[in-house]
Amino acid sequence: MIAANNPNLKTWLSVPEGSDFSIQNIPFGVACTKGDTPRVVSRIGDYVIDLKVLFDFGYFADLHVALEDFDTDCLNNMMRRGKSGVRAIRNRISELFTEEHELKSNSNHLEQILIPVSEAIMMMPVRVGDYTDFYSSEQHAYNVGCMFRDPNNALLPNWKYIPVGYHGRASSIVVSGTNFHRPKGQQRPVDAEPPVFGPSKQLDFELEMAFVTFEGKTLGDSISTKEADDYIFGMCLFNDWSARDLQKWEYVPLGPFLAKNFASHVSPWIVTLDALEPFRVKGPVQDPKVFEYLEYEGDKHIDINLEVSIKPESSEEKLVSKSNYRYMYWNMNQQLAHHTINGCNIKAGDMMASGTISGPSETEYGSMLEISWKGTKPVQMPDGSERKFIMDHDTVIMRGYSEKNGVRVGFGEVSAKVLPAK
Amino acid sequence: MIAANNPNLKTWLSVPEGSDFSIQNIPFGVACTKGDTPRVVSRIGDYVIDLKVLFDFGYFADLHVALEDFDTDCLNNMMRRGKSGVRAIRNRISELFTEEHELKSNSNHLEQILIPVSEAIMMMPVRVGDYTDFYSSEQHAYNVGCMFRDPNNALLPNWKYIPVGYHGRASSIVVSGTNFHRPKGQQRPVDAEPPVFGPSKQLDFELEMAFVTFEGKTLGDSISTKEADDYIFGMCLFNDWSARDLQKWEYVPLGPFLAKNFASHVSPWIVTLDALEPFRVKGPVQDPKVFEYLEYEGDKHIDINLEVSIKPESSEEKLVSKSNYRYMYWNMNQQLAHHTINGCNIKAGDMMASGTISGPSETEYGSMLEISWKGTKPVQMPDGSERKFIMDHDTVIMRGYSEKNGVRVGFGEVSAKVLPAK
Repeated sequence: MIAANNPNLKTWLSVPEGSDFSIQNIPFGVACTKGDTPRVVSRIGDYVIDLKVLFDFGYFADLHVALEDFDTDCLNNMMRRGKSGVRAIRNRISELFTEEHELKSNSNHLEQILIPVSEAIMMMPVRVGDYTDFYSSEQHAYNVGCMFRDPNNALLPNWKYIPVGYHGRASSIVVSGTNFHRPKGQQRPVDAEPPVFGPSKQLDFELEMAFVTFEGKTLGDSISTKEADDYIFGMCLFNDWSARDLQKWEYVPLGPFLAKNFASHVSPWIVTLDALEPFRVKGPVQDPKVFEYLEYEGDKHIDINLEVSIKPESSEEKLVSKSNYRYMYWNMNQQLAHHTINGCNIKAGDMMASGTISGPSETEYGSMLEISWKGTKPVQMPDGSERKFIMDHDTVIMRGYSEKNGVRVGFGEVSAKVLPAK
Repeated sequence: MIAANNPNLKTWLSVPEGSDFSIQNIPFGVACTKGDTPRVVSRIGDYVIDLKVLFDFGYFADLHVALEDFDTDCLNNMMRRGKSGVRAIRNRISELFTEEHELKSNSNHLEQILIPVSEAIMMMPVRVGDYTDFYSSEQHAYNVGCMFRDPNNALLPNWKYIPVGYHGRASSIVVSGTNFHRPKGQQRPVDAEPPVFGPSKQLDFELEMAFVTFEGKTLGDSISTKEADDYIFGMCLFNDWSARDLQKWEYVPLGPFLAKNFASHVSPWIVTLDALEPFRVKGPVQDPKVFEYLEYEGDKHIDINLEVSIKPESSEEKLVSKSNYRYMYWNMNQQLAHHTINGCNIKAGDMMASGTISGPSETEYGSMLEISWKGTKPVQMPDGSERKFIMDHDTVIMRGYSEKNGVRVGFGEVSAKVLPAK
């Protein structure tokens, strides 16, 4: 077992009931604190842990790390240490905050190491090189197929052979809390008539999770499903905002473009794949049988509870979806094996999102397109208004966590407010 | 007129007849020379000019530049200087190599500044952030539509309204001369039967050009067609390798993925947009009228002669296409305005390719798919073999240049050999 995953570990730091940030989590992020420069941080309970200060004090002295791994504005430097290097850092942080460690009684050190979460400004954790979005939830692909094609042939012929994916825009991936403007663009509301131009009228969220990669292999080489875990650093929540009306008009034949690249939001904490190992579950039976390069052994899906809420400007939030990452048809190992089977190279800091994660029940759909079934079933909001899609000044909040045997490892939230079009 | 564009400028350096690298060009690239670390370079005739050494000797002393702009392995640092900063550097280099400048007689300096092109290893010029591929040649879109859909409705309804584009993979963009392996992947040769897996049998080139951007605006802001020139650093040749059989099976509904991201090749010299200004030409009349944000003033197309050759392993090369960048329906200003109309942010070092550039005649088609018309019209090679697509050990070479009033400004070539599948 990875030391930091031990369910018996106890920390002397107070961890509020139901906190995503147990001592079994130890995620990584980047924060600005106390007016200082950005640095790499971790978190337990409501405390942000400054890893640059831990480094300065020598707590990482015997690890293969350097100041620039922590004294920086992204996790990419630290990620160069690879799976085993990052595992050693996480294990060390965990160890430092157990009852047994003397750090507990070093108030001078603690004062500089710990920052109340309310005083830390969380930043974009990773400098994303390439961003890929998959389309790996069967229920989502089925729902979309039913709405726009034929319920009897809802899944396209390639869907059960290929973990379908496409390239997205890296520059417009921003961290939770970054508000953004409703995108403008071309739409064609009536098929027989010419298109019109204006703010999107069908702004939607997509409930996704993303994984971040370590440095991969050379161009021309492939990563097998068996090797994939070693190339995955960790995961975060991902809101793949989508302007449905822009998408409908632009996406044939080369895929979504302006419908997606105005903004995508990530949660600030990267939870390591290591920390998620205890929550592995079996995936679905895949029929037809997949090609050999997509076969895998063991449980490679993960049980992560997910939920989405919409909060209008001046009323309480409304839960509109509860889903689970275990609903994926294709797992990350298969996605990564597929992505590289042609020799495509991946780099440290690449981000790969799951695609909308919809569960089998109507309460588990991961987008307003599905929840409101193309606008035919509006959602009633607490303030009496209704939602077919997302309105100006709405905040969309996604949350996610795993829980088993009393241990909770969670992601916090990704949240963003829609401002009116510029 | 930009000083370095003056057609009357003469250099004392010998420039071979028909060279792409006249003193009116002054492109930028990155080279390893004399076993040294990579540095930023320019070129006149068959001489590579070491800009780090020029900086060290103080020739840029009055410019707003720094050592790290030139003592580096990519042009991104220099590009932070923006349009006017790079223009000043280019003007200075030009001035240094005219008859009038005293550098001519400083043999000690010259010995360190000039490297014969045969002794320089050209490297990837730019660290590409995001890569976008457009689809902006009408003849190409028409040809593809004829082959795969209906000649009477060859262009899709959105094509004349939208400069259609999609996101591509940045990590697999490599410099000319980087040989690569034929990609493997899923294909479905017979529509009614299940897919198969193996090396692509329909490996194709796409004759494209790409432009590289300066740092853009903040997320949420747009770049107008009028402003676009100020955000474009320069251009290069671009071979958008495509595995047609992989593409056909995977691309619905989210666009090309593994069919493209195994390798894309660029020519090593970025020719500045400034250097191409004298070759501007009028674009086509656009009917239907475009949306206001896509309207533009002045001549924004560019007359660049393009050609493609295939060189089998042990025989001479065969010219298979002559085209021209002026054939674009949508120009770069429109592409950039479209890309950002929804608030998408662009960064210094983003690369945006044109899409296959096909001219109206059969000899001007920019891909084997079109040249061999889906394999129905094989090309006869000098060694007696024939080509429907690209074979193992073939080298594909693309060249491009502008010429007017005796001044030639060219790109050199982008060349790459296909190795057998791994």
